[in-house]
Amino acid sequence: PPLTHFDADGQAHMVDVSGKAVTDRVALAEGFVRMTPQTLALVTSGTAKKGDVLGIARLAGIMGAKKTSDLIPLCHPLPITKVALELEPQPDLPGIRIAATVKTGGQTGVEMEALTAVSTACLTVYDMLKAAEKGMEITGIRLLRKEGGKSGTYEAD
Amino acid sequence: PPLTHFDADGQAHMVDVSGKAVTDRVALAEGFVRMTPQTLALVTSGTAKKGDVLGIARLAGIMGAKKTSDLIPLCHPLPITKVALELEPQPDLPGIRIAATVKTGGQTGVEMEALTAVSTACLTVYDMLKAAEKGMEITGIRLLRKEGGKSGTYEAD
Amino acid sequence: PPLTHFDADGQAHMVDVSGKAVTDRVALAEGFVRMTPQTLALVTSGTAKKGDVLGIARLAGIMGAKKTSDLIPLCHPLPITKVALELEPQPDLPGIRIAATVKTGGQTGVEMEALTAVSTACLTVYDMLKAAEKGMEITGIRLLRKEGGKSGTYEAD
Amino acid sequence: PPLTHFDADGQAHMVDVSGKAVTDRVALAEGFVRMTPQTLALVTSGTAKKGDVLGIARLAGIMGAKKTSDLIPLCHPLPITKVALELEPQPDLPGIRIAATVKTGGQTGVEMEALTAVSTACLTVYDMLKAAEKGMEITGIRLLRKEGGKSGTYEAD
Amino acid sequence: PPLTHFDADGQAHMVDVSGKAVTDRVALAEGFVRMTPQTLALVTSGTAKKGDVLGIARLAGIMGAKKTSDLIPLCHPLPITKVALELEPQPDLPGIRIAATVKTGGQTGVEMEALTAVSTACLTVYDMLKAAEKGMEITGIRLLRKEGGKSGTYEAD
Amino acid sequence: PPLTHFDADGQAHMVDVSGKAVTDRVALAEGFVRMTPQTLALVTSGTAKKGDVLGIARLAGIMGAKKTSDLIPLCHPLPITKVALELEPQPDLPGIRIAATVKTGGQTGVEMEALTAVSTACLTVYDMLKAAEKGMEITGIRLLRKEGGKSGTYEAD
Repeated sequence: PPLTHFDADGQAHMVDVSGKAVTDRVALAEGFVRMTPQTLALVTSGTAKKGDVLGIARLAGIMGAKKTSDLIPLCHPLPITKVALELEPQPDLPGIRIAATVKTGGQTGVEMEALTAVSTACLTVYDMLKAAEKGMEITGIRLLRKEGGKSGTYEAD
Repeated sequence: PPLTHFDADGQAHMVDVSGKAVTDRVALAEGFVRMTPQTLALVTSGTAKKGDVLGIARLAGIMGAKKTSDLIPLCHPLPITKVALELEPQPDLPGIRIAATVKTGGQTGVEMEALTAVSTACLTVYDMLKAAEKGMEITGIRLLRKEGGKSGTYEAD
Repeated sequence: PPLTHFDADGQAHMVDVSGKAVTDRVALAEGFVRMTPQTLALVTSGTAKKGDVLGIARLAGIMGAKKTSDLIPLCHPLPITKVALELEPQPDLPGIRIAATVKTGGQTGVEMEALTAVSTACLTVYDMLKAAEKGMEITGIRLLRKEGGKSGTYEAD
Repeated sequence: PPLTHFDADGQAHMVDVSGKAVTDRVALAEGFVRMTPQTLALVTSGTAKKGDVLGIARLAGIMGAKKTSDLIPLCHPLPITKVALELEPQPDLPGIRIAATVKTGGQTGVEMEALTAVSTACLTVYDMLKAAEKGMEITGIRLLRKEGGKSGTYEAD
Repeated sequence: PPLTHFDADGQAHMVDVSGKAVTDRVALAEGFVRMTPQTLALVTSGTAKKGDVLGIARLAGIMGAKKTSDLIPLCHPLPITKVALELEPQPDLPGIRIAATVKTGGQTGVEMEALTAVSTACLTVYDMLKAAEKGMEITGIRLLRKEGGKSGTYEAD
Repeated sequence: PPLTHFDADGQAHMVDVSGKAVTDRVALAEGFVRMTPQTLALVTSGTAKKGDVLGIARLAGIMGAKKTSDLIPLCHPLPITKVALELEPQPDLPGIRIAATVKTGGQTGVEMEALTAVSTACLTVYDMLKAAEKGMEITGIRLLRKEGGKSGTYEAD
């Protein structure tokens, strides 16, 4: 399988997408922050007493999606038309599950935008809670679904 | 344990560090990108033929560390004095292990800078290889070690 | 009236505009920096002797408009097609009136871009003149007119 | 009074502060968003049903403070050590009062950072509520207090 | 010839391009970093021993192109669809020749994006090698070719 | 001569400066934009009729200096304490000479900041005048002088 970010000589470039169709494209990604039950309790009792950890991480994720082409060297700048994040405490993990949906009407997919949104929200959860637990782990960041473009729909197992 | 990013009323703020000492601070973080052996082979044969995936991810990680306070809402801007990343193919994973060391002489720690460097490098590895495999997973991002500041040295288990 | 930046559960998101038409959209906003007559005299005698306060504020406003989606968390990035500012000394205020016109061909309006241009220009006027007067006030920032999009034309009273 | 952002020939420059002392500096600024009582009711019933307008504006203000030297052409980049915002519904206005406190240990004051924090938070309040009312007005942005540095303490009337 | 970045009164503005056609536009620019043969030898023996100077400069050029409208005050933000750089050691100079090709499907040309890519890559070459030679010179940055838009094709002599 | 941006294995890193002294450091750089006498005449008649080309380029140079560590991958973020640019029409060139002086109190030199200021100002001059002449050339960008730090004073021939 060809790595499209390299040319025939193996040199990195931002690949030419000018010939690709402007179609609706959607990507959905997820990730997790694993923590102790005690730390999770700080989050779930959050809006009341300790401040809104999940609300701040959601916002960071949305703003992170907009910085994707700044962060990832070969990403095209894209006119994002939607970003939404779900952040859900999962007592079984224990920790937080974060999912991000990103849409565009551009010429390349938004997988990186969705993954960057999840990743930034995970880092922000860590930052908000690190005074309580430094041993948290960010894990399981992956693409769940991708629609639109020539390669069609991708669905994770 | 108090969540320092919130004040007594539970409102988010960038906490006052003006009274903290300017000391040398170091943080070391790691993370992994899990992929199929076939995808990993594209990386390890990289410098020769397919372009330098790890070199580009290293650079993205270094630049990502510099954007930490832009990405993480309550992070203080810090005069980073060192960023170094190691990217190592691990046939057993299979995948890539990424580790980042960040130093500063500022008034707060650089855990978030190290974690952001790792996270940005992981995302870049994904971006460079996604044409070959969309099912890669970014996993195991955590703080390994932290030195300096009042809370002293932290070492992960 | 529904607050479109929140979903049905009250969670913030960047609202989906992918179904909205790509039409020409214009917004016009204004704002004022109130100052003493002595400070205003420093500006109006400006191009000759004291440097070009208004020219620098104009440029800051144009560049500020381009940063709108960076500053305002839920704003969509937009391909701005025009930004123009007028800065006019008003002896009666006394102070400076700043007006900004922004155009786009995108899927959402440019009210925030026009207001951000005005706001950034006002802050820059303050910065340029604060050595002479710290008591200046930025005031009366509002949307004057908006055209294009489904909601049609808005005109301030 | 000399305008320090211009040299003897009236040319703009970022003024040399290398000889100035590194002291603790604080600035406090305020601003207001005026709106109808109906719009204000959407905010005050916020955390429950309509989403957290004030929490999002607070975060935007904190992040805005960090972008000050990006936005204001002649501002020095500064190691901000604290940013805190208060956002308070004022039924008498009616509207929202926003106040920001910024601290640094640097060589120049943080007036512009405090004013930028207020200004960005005001713009974000407007953005969050503009679907309900386009006629809101951002007003009364001014410096309340400034401490530290050679010029000493400033207090608004 | 009219300077389009100024209005009839000589005031700077971001010129209105909303009426211009969305066509494919390409620009090609070049530049040079002149150095001693000894310094050049450090580059050409690079990938083996001393690190990949040209690979890093190439990446910096690609990322620089994406920052053009951030850097150049009156540039429109543009959806870049391709960026590619060639970096070639030239023993006769002696030094490095850098060429950049940028494409867009937008409403204005990408000359500035190509020139900014070249310029950023040249600066990065300087940065990577300055420990060996401070006397290097960046020279001969110019537009080679431009296609698309109403003004048609431009070709340097 | 060792290339400090690479470690012993030839991998790029942001080199550790935490052990370096915080001293006053200054750098002075220059560059040129060569153009036809007709284009130069548009600049020199500028402030009066055609808008202030040099004033805008000066501001872009100052703001560009602040973006140096964003643009140049391995540059440390630095607390710049002064940026000043001189822009001077040179009928003999014919064209514009641009010189930039940058100061810091940090742990590494500001050569790259001075060169980036010059480079950004040159690009902006090109942008402002390209409607009149596409064949302009940016040339002769080099470091003139550098003071401070362990390596002491450097002076170009």
